[in-house]
Amino acid sequence: MNLEKKIRNIQDFPKPGIGFKDITTLIGDGEAFKYTIDKMVNDIKAYDVDIVVGPEARGFIFGTPVAYGLGVGFVPIRKPGKLPSEVESYEYDLEYGTDILEIHKDAIKPGMKVAIVDDLLATGGTTKAATELIEKLGGEVVILEFVIELEFLNGREKLQQYNVNSLVSYSAE
Amino acid sequence: MNLEKKIRNIQDFPKPGIGFKDITTLIGDGEAFKYTIDKMVNDIKAYDVDIVVGPEARGFIFGTPVAYGLGVGFVPIRKPGKLPSEVESYEYDLEYGTDILEIHKDAIKPGMKVAIVDDLLATGGTTKAATELIEKLGGEVVILEFVIELEFLNGREKLQQYNVNSLVSYSAE
Repeated sequence: MNLEKKIRNIQDFPKPGIGFKDITTLIGDGEAFKYTIDKMVNDIKAYDVDIVVGPEARGFIFGTPVAYGLGVGFVPIRKPGKLPSEVESYEYDLEYGTDILEIHKDAIKPGMKVAIVDDLLATGGTTKAATELIEKLGGEVVILEFVIELEFLNGREKLQQYNVNSLVSYSAE
Repeated sequence: MNLEKKIRNIQDFPKPGIGFKDITTLIGDGEAFKYTIDKMVNDIKAYDVDIVVGPEARGFIFGTPVAYGLGVGFVPIRKPGKLPSEVESYEYDLEYGTDILEIHKDAIKPGMKVAIVDDLLATGGTTKAATELIEKLGGEVVILEFVIELEFLNGREKLQQYNVNSLVSYSAE
């Protein structure tokens, strides 16, 4: 299946000049969604992971069915104030300003093998923050799995020590 | 499996006096998560739905694996400004103030049979808003499926014309 055809391009969202890759057309198509999740599950299977971690909110859309398909649990990474129990926080730089992500402290046990699943690898900032949170708790990040990769933003440079996989790559904007 | 034991109670979150039902302990447990999704898929199967709809963000956590399990697509309902294409909006009352939810206009086709999946049925406000959005687009809401129901908040009263199902019910706070 040509997944790229299932992804809608929205010009000038969220800002003028940006071509947004809209995955809602992919996930709204039952066959394309099943194909995508099956492929991600298959990519991750060999790593024998204990848990899948996904960042809010589109990371939930792909991370939870992948966890279900693998038969493992899912741990959400969220914006501040959303997780009700004790959290580990990580602040990181954005193009303008900073952002904070949180994870429940007891969600990752030392030595756990972790897959991070998200819709998009762009600059890699969110994923890098996720790896920091997981490693702070003693988890081992063994695979990073994305639906889409925007190669021209060089996210892999920030993530050189990890196995990175994506289903659809764009080499230019 | 006793799912209630997998749900963590967090006192005074997000406000003093509220006992928050934390589903992160359930979804972090691979067996409990699989059991939950399998049960939801099984409940919905008989309704022969075309699509699953889930509201941001915990609705994504259960709605997408349920859609995957059923072999159908998933449509997100989101807070304003998050969906990139043309949206239908619905404003509804909260305890204090109002909230707005959005859905992509082309995500539901007239006549589609829809399941709404979410983590929690509390007062029913979010779910009612979701039904309004789906029906505005010509969809038919055939089943509402929740992990948790807070019976003492009487959410079913707002949703009397629908089939409502929940896996874990709390009759008192």
